Amino acid sequence: MKLAISLGDLNGIGLEIALRSHEEIAQWCEPVYCIDPTMLAWGAALLGLDVPQTMQVHPCGDVFDITPGRATKASGKASYHSFLKALGLVQANKADALVTLPIHKEAWHKADVLYKGHTDALSGLLKEDAMMMLGCEKLFVGLFTHHIPLKNVAKQIKKKPLTHFLIRFWESLHVRPIGVLGLNPHAGDGGVIGREERVIAKAIAAANAYAGEEVFMGPLVPDTAFTPRQLEQFSHLVCLYHDQGLAPLKALFFEESINVSLGLSVVRTSVDHGTAYDIAYKNANPSCKSYLNAIQSALVLARKRENFTET
Amino acid sequence: MKLAISLGDLNGIGLEIALRSHEEIAQWCEPVYCIDPTMLAWGAALLGLDVPQTMQVHPCGDVFDITPGRATKASGKASYHSFLKALGLVQANKADALVTLPIHKEAWHKADVLYKGHTDALSGLLKEDAMMMLGCEKLFVGLFTHHIPLKNVAKQIKKKPLTHFLIRFWESLHVRPIGVLGLNPHAGDGGVIGREERVIAKAIAAANAYAGEEVFMGPLVPDTAFTPRQLEQFSHLVCLYHDQGLAPLKALFFEESINVSLGLSVVRTSVDHGTAYDIAYKNANPSCKSYLNAIQSALVLARKRENFTET
Repeated sequence: MKLAISLGDLNGIGLEIALRSHEEIAQWCEPVYCIDPTMLAWGAALLGLDVPQTMQVHPCGDVFDITPGRATKASGKASYHSFLKALGLVQANKADALVTLPIHKEAWHKADVLYKGHTDALSGLLKEDAMMMLGCEKLFVGLFTHHIPLKNVAKQIKKKPLTHFLIRFWESLHVRPIGVLGLNPHAGDGGVIGREERVIAKAIAAANAYAGEEVFMGPLVPDTAFTPRQLEQFSHLVCLYHDQGLAPLKALFFEESINVSLGLSVVRTSVDHGTAYDIAYKNANPSCKSYLNAIQSALVLARKRENFTET
Repeated sequence: MKLAISLGDLNGIGLEIALRSHEEIAQWCEPVYCIDPTMLAWGAALLGLDVPQTMQVHPCGDVFDITPGRATKASGKASYHSFLKALGLVQANKADALVTLPIHKEAWHKADVLYKGHTDALSGLLKEDAMMMLGCEKLFVGLFTHHIPLKNVAKQIKKKPLTHFLIRFWESLHVRPIGVLGLNPHAGDGGVIGREERVIAKAIAAANAYAGEEVFMGPLVPDTAFTPRQLEQFSHLVCLYHDQGLAPLKALFFEESINVSLGLSVVRTSVDHGTAYDIAYKNANPSCKSYLNAIQSALVLARKRENFTET
């Protein structure tokens, strides 16, 4: 399998992570790095690292001065070009999936990039609606709603859109069982503490009927959904709002987590951390766990897509 | 220090936990067990355990047939009497704190007890408003709202009641710093995703002004409030709703957690599990962690109360 890798902001830690992880990754797949060769050599020299001879490069972007830890117009422009190049390779079937290293939003803004970040750019460029999933092998959490005020969450719990989300989620992953959380304390306690669980139960039933098997289970009691016993049963959970999923996930698996965009015409995974400007080019030997997990998940998802030949 | 211990439902695992933990607890304090001596001897015999000679008993309740794993009128009545006796000892200054082992709600109902559980009974009998705190030494979580539908949470975020809660919370514990979580994703992201964080910030400022020092910090970003780095800084967090606090807490510290009632005229702690009827009197050697932690926290809180001579 071939993975197109965008290097992210070259003033951040992305390049160091890519260089330090290459030998390991090259044992699993054929990574293609979207970066100008001069910039690659220069960045590696600044880091005191060798450029592995087996590194396959797709040249893109301009040559500019690396200024560690600073959001510049040049770093923003180069990281956007790296992203566009990597995305283009996947769209042209020259790579099986896209893995992104972190960009810096301020640098994109300085470079007049219209989008706020990767997910926003993917939705805009592909004109598709991405589903957000975060986590690691032990636990992936899909989010039905994301960046909306808590007071508006309950209103979004409607049978049709939730059913649609569950079906798309399942079609993207083909795993089972998938747990679906309730909205209220104790999952409503039989209707005593809120009634949204009835709607959730109906959406689960409809999605299972569509799938023709019992894929989804729930509504689960939210405050015990992340205990060791539950995680033995469910490696995938659908959460109804941002903090319901991400607070327990980050409590348990902070360093390992990755970000996955589901429901798009391309497979895309990403690290779940930022450019870490404070430790860039300082020989800090940053954790590569999230990146390695992003690579592995991209391979798993790309293989699934091959098997199920969805488009 | 003297602790009054109510044995909970004698058809459950409470007695086994008390017997197995007594020697250890007796090294820390003077525990007083509220139980009929015949029942104690009988239960121990059923369990195949000796009754430690140093066990101090305050007789209460009737003699009845122990029927392991069944919620009966007799077990309900006896557990209510044990609770009343233990509470009475603390109110009469014959003990410094109350520690409760689990009762069974159905058994209380069968015995015509008016209350649903311990916390409900404490509020009713003492005519005081209990604050709920759950957790263990590494992390305690105070809940500003408990068993209300999620859609009603945002409405409860008002400056005066939140300030009042924070002040009572601090006066019950005298610890700092205490983190206060935001309500919305990314704590509102500067007002872009909800505005309740302004109210929360004002309540924090008012409570700190009352305390005369910076006790409370926040509003914290909810989804990173439980990461290892944050828990190094905060051992106490105030959460605004049930699952915001309890889902991450139970993900991290399921077996160790206890339940603490704050803001009452008596110090009361409890295990955070139920009667576990399925393993009662089966030589299952249940975990005593939660009970031992409940004992230790009762001692810490009772000592603090002595030092600060609150009433």
